[in-house]
Amino acid sequence: MLKVGLLGAGRIAGVHATAISSHPDSELVAISDFYPETARKLAEQYGTEARTSEEIIADSSIDAVLIATSTDTHSDLIEAATAAGKAVLCEKPVDLSLERARACLKNASASGQPVMIGFNRRFDRNFGALKAALDAGEIGKAELLAITSYDPAPPPVAYVKVSGGLFRDMMIHDFDMANFLMGEAPVSVSAIGSSIVDAEIGAAGDVDTAVVTMTYSDGKIAVIRNSRRAGFGYDQRVELLGSEGMLQVENMLENTVVKSTTEGVTSAKPTYFFLERYMPAYAAEWAAFVEAVTGNGEVPVTLEDGVAALAMAEAATQSRKLQKPVMIADV
Amino acid sequence: MLKVGLLGAGRIAGVHATAISSHPDSELVAISDFYPETARKLAEQYGTEARTSEEIIADSSIDAVLIATSTDTHSDLIEAATAAGKAVLCEKPVDLSLERARACLKNASASGQPVMIGFNRRFDRNFGALKAALDAGEIGKAELLAITSYDPAPPPVAYVKVSGGLFRDMMIHDFDMANFLMGEAPVSVSAIGSSIVDAEIGAAGDVDTAVVTMTYSDGKIAVIRNSRRAGFGYDQRVELLGSEGMLQVENMLENTVVKSTTEGVTSAKPTYFFLERYMPAYAAEWAAFVEAVTGNGEVPVTLEDGVAALAMAEAATQSRKLQKPVMIADV
Amino acid sequence: MLKVGLLGAGRIAGVHATAISSHPDSELVAISDFYPETARKLAEQYGTEARTSEEIIADSSIDAVLIATSTDTHSDLIEAATAAGKAVLCEKPVDLSLERARACLKNASASGQPVMIGFNRRFDRNFGALKAALDAGEIGKAELLAITSYDPAPPPVAYVKVSGGLFRDMMIHDFDMANFLMGEAPVSVSAIGSSIVDAEIGAAGDVDTAVVTMTYSDGKIAVIRNSRRAGFGYDQRVELLGSEGMLQVENMLENTVVKSTTEGVTSAKPTYFFLERYMPAYAAEWAAFVEAVTGNGEVPVTLEDGVAALAMAEAATQSRKLQKPVMIADV
Amino acid sequence: MLKVGLLGAGRIAGVHATAISSHPDSELVAISDFYPETARKLAEQYGTEARTSEEIIADSSIDAVLIATSTDTHSDLIEAATAAGKAVLCEKPVDLSLERARACLKNASASGQPVMIGFNRRFDRNFGALKAALDAGEIGKAELLAITSYDPAPPPVAYVKVSGGLFRDMMIHDFDMANFLMGEAPVSVSAIGSSIVDAEIGAAGDVDTAVVTMTYSDGKIAVIRNSRRAGFGYDQRVELLGSEGMLQVENMLENTVVKSTTEGVTSAKPTYFFLERYMPAYAAEWAAFVEAVTGNGEVPVTLEDGVAALAMAEAATQSRKLQKPVMIADV
Repeated sequence: MLKVGLLGAGRIAGVHATAISSHPDSELVAISDFYPETARKLAEQYGTEARTSEEIIADSSIDAVLIATSTDTHSDLIEAATAAGKAVLCEKPVDLSLERARACLKNASASGQPVMIGFNRRFDRNFGALKAALDAGEIGKAELLAITSYDPAPPPVAYVKVSGGLFRDMMIHDFDMANFLMGEAPVSVSAIGSSIVDAEIGAAGDVDTAVVTMTYSDGKIAVIRNSRRAGFGYDQRVELLGSEGMLQVENMLENTVVKSTTEGVTSAKPTYFFLERYMPAYAAEWAAFVEAVTGNGEVPVTLEDGVAALAMAEAATQSRKLQKPVMIADV
Repeated sequence: MLKVGLLGAGRIAGVHATAISSHPDSELVAISDFYPETARKLAEQYGTEARTSEEIIADSSIDAVLIATSTDTHSDLIEAATAAGKAVLCEKPVDLSLERARACLKNASASGQPVMIGFNRRFDRNFGALKAALDAGEIGKAELLAITSYDPAPPPVAYVKVSGGLFRDMMIHDFDMANFLMGEAPVSVSAIGSSIVDAEIGAAGDVDTAVVTMTYSDGKIAVIRNSRRAGFGYDQRVELLGSEGMLQVENMLENTVVKSTTEGVTSAKPTYFFLERYMPAYAAEWAAFVEAVTGNGEVPVTLEDGVAALAMAEAATQSRKLQKPVMIADV
Repeated sequence: MLKVGLLGAGRIAGVHATAISSHPDSELVAISDFYPETARKLAEQYGTEARTSEEIIADSSIDAVLIATSTDTHSDLIEAATAAGKAVLCEKPVDLSLERARACLKNASASGQPVMIGFNRRFDRNFGALKAALDAGEIGKAELLAITSYDPAPPPVAYVKVSGGLFRDMMIHDFDMANFLMGEAPVSVSAIGSSIVDAEIGAAGDVDTAVVTMTYSDGKIAVIRNSRRAGFGYDQRVELLGSEGMLQVENMLENTVVKSTTEGVTSAKPTYFFLERYMPAYAAEWAAFVEAVTGNGEVPVTLEDGVAALAMAEAATQSRKLQKPVMIADV
Repeated sequence: MLKVGLLGAGRIAGVHATAISSHPDSELVAISDFYPETARKLAEQYGTEARTSEEIIADSSIDAVLIATSTDTHSDLIEAATAAGKAVLCEKPVDLSLERARACLKNASASGQPVMIGFNRRFDRNFGALKAALDAGEIGKAELLAITSYDPAPPPVAYVKVSGGLFRDMMIHDFDMANFLMGEAPVSVSAIGSSIVDAEIGAAGDVDTAVVTMTYSDGKIAVIRNSRRAGFGYDQRVELLGSEGMLQVENMLENTVVKSTTEGVTSAKPTYFFLERYMPAYAAEWAAFVEAVTGNGEVPVTLEDGVAALAMAEAATQSRKLQKPVMIADV
């Protein structure tokens, strides 16, 4: 039984708390938060204890920590937890600073502890099925990847200001998806973006609508589209053209009812936002972590993967400002 | 070049006039109608001559006639035209009276002339593709057939009164579709129906909503659903469960636009009514007739097929009144 | 906290054990089974106690029982449990004998205890959304209902022999669905069927493929199609034509991947069989039961509903043998 | 009756010959071709005369010419025909040289004759319906446009060498589609591409897979994906995210048959290549030309539109070589 400390008690921490508690081989033994009262409430709900992050990390009876705190604490906590001999599952992104993330990677690697980054979408059964079909050669070799990822509504501008920007905060999921599906990092990244949804986001120096194109050493191409507002809800699709066909992941809909009237033929909207869409993926992610940690220690999404996605976000951020492609090797 | 006389100049005759004129191997040489002025107008539109049906049939330079007159004249015209040595394509149904249709079959057969019945849906590319897939063994052996056929709006009650009723007028297409797909006639027919759409239709002794089930000698089953009003338009679907899978023909939509808003994900309505949906099928039907008549004379939909569908309509009509299944052998 | 005894420890009991355990307001305190070892194993898995059904019913500290035993014990257990002052959720069907079920209804009603029948499909979010849209008037008034329900593969003939037949064992779900959606019972039931899938099933006196049509007092019509073998998996669809449009529930697919190759455009198969398709419905069913029992006691699916569906199964069974429609009032 | 000369007698000229002949208000009076025998054959098929382009342009009884010759002759023929007082419908692109095309625009404009460019996709009913929905405000304001356009198989390398490259030959349709839907030209164009499908195409200096992103003055973004080989056929889709929703044009399929087996749920492939997919659009394009020429002379796709699309192709070609965005104002 893996004894787990949960660092952070916000919304996504609640999702993880459920996953940890429900798994037959893991036990949630402590929860911390910057606001002790928040930790106390979540701990009460799951019948466990509220402690500080320091106490949790120092407790040698705890085997693993799940880091779901604010991004600026991720690197420090990864380093501290691995140094204390704990396995780590950390929410994305590793850090807003690529330099800091690389240092963290160096330090954590030295510990020999397994560190997994929470790119939950890799564990979505739809993307997983696409990846499996690709690996089985069902469409030949990958040539042109298109990822569409739209949020239903923009976050508050206050959040945007501390988020690191759309590329580090939102598109980082898509960068990792590209790496997951393509099986390698791109050579160059080119980004355009605008604040057509909310001018305040533009005033804060960020974009709310963006397209990034990426080239690969063998000629493959990837394009990612992001918007902070889809109007109809949460849009999460992937499309991959291969040498012998195409694979697509379509949206999951709220239900399968189809209504035909004089207005047309209407289906339900996509499931609303990430908690609804990816809830099973969070559970599968946790199961994969437990299996890795209690097995050979080889996690399916590594800290290297986290740094690689962050490098792409950094390149995209630079590319948009420089108005030219940026080589991954240069960031 | 097949010289063709068109008997009847109503709406469906116009469709046939286009098909006859457009075909490279047929020429529309004369048009008749109960109302000479109607014939004159259509003839003018197609640059041909208006004559009486008698004149057309008597004209030995005319090779074939297409009968698109009112149903009560079909049998007489088939007999007269075949007796005069002409090939015939006649609109469905052969007759409202099964007895009269059988006599017509006997007389026309004696002439040795090819007589084809206008079950246009057999020439729809979608139903044709389903039939081809079935014949290719793609779902094993047929087991359970379901035909859905809804009109967008009920006809005037005045029409209903002379139509022979829903089973002879509307469902007859579906009876023929069942024979086309199943490759044989059913053993028994059982019908229920009601006038839930329009009470006036019920007062006229007919139904506007009906379900017919049919059994086959080897255990196959078919079910046909008809409604005179679908609200959203024209609904024409077929579904066939086989021993190794299922084949469905879905509706054709007006266009492929999909709109996603807070209201849901909306596609276009099905193409509205039979002229829009089956226009290409009418042309294909005519091409098949020309090919048969100028070839070996074996038409793809025979007068026997027309009589078979009429027998099923007769059985359904009786079944609804008797409130019990009726054997095809007994009608 | 509702203390619950689970009678029966077979496959479906395992599903219920999860639902009972996971619900925040219910506690699984004991499990029984005809085979004590089976009960012991399931009890161990859920950290609870194995006892006999008699002990569970006699234990006044237990508030409710969930009956998931073999069908022939349902009526007796419902009567015993309600007499002992317990709320009951009983798997369908109430009984194979309509007479016995009616006696059970009378006896259980006298107890004043809530008795709910486990027609889980009413709690499927898709059928629920269709019902909600219908009730909201989105397609006007219901006119023609079509329920399609195909299993992936036939059960062993040994099971068929004790199942009460396809109408009581399999189509009973669809009879209840018809009552749920139509809001009333039919007037007459007419059934045809054959054993085209497996001749052994026919030799055992049952059918494996069947179509039932039903009429309603106001002219509405319903048709149910069942097959024991769909080849491609589990097919669970509903289609309701109303005066102003149509509502359909489509199948849920295993994933949303679409593959386009020279072979065509291929989506995943429907989720395989009832455990996969209806798992969330079982949890929702249990939640509804808990809410009713801890609330005003008015369960959403009553014992009367269970008897009504059984009466329709009885009528269908008779109709197939008599080869004519059977009035519900006559069974 | 518009008397029309057809310049060019190749494959696409055959499509136009049908459209011209079938239209009630136009008459095909002469056909020319670089190979007189080719012109003779097509003329014979349509019962008209084979002449030289010079003779056709010099014939004052001819009202309009349709130019379907090789691209390098377009500008000269547009100038000659308009100078001779003829209305012109010219196949895309106007020219491979942007400079030459601009000179042609200047010269042809001076003639006052209507000149329409054959961007047939504007007349496809699906794209037309999307445009109409956008103009009706159904998704608010346009924000992010994505055009997907894949051919089924790459052309011969010999063709690639004289085609002007993918951006001028293939993507030019998509550039025009962007202008049609966005209602304005972009500010900047950024292109990446590779020859991952066929290395020979790369050796010839061209790409076979490309992504172009474009920015607009108000912050809108467009992205176009092209591949010379889709494997599954011809892929022609458009997707437009607006401030209040999304509009998509999906592919048209060969038929509406759906097959469900253990392999999955399979629909037909998209209609194969442009003749099948866009045949009705060619007829609608011709009808629009006839209506404009016989009406107020204002054609729906102007020579300016043709030059605008060519400028975008030029910018994309430069961008790919320079590896940076190119301003439309700079080409």
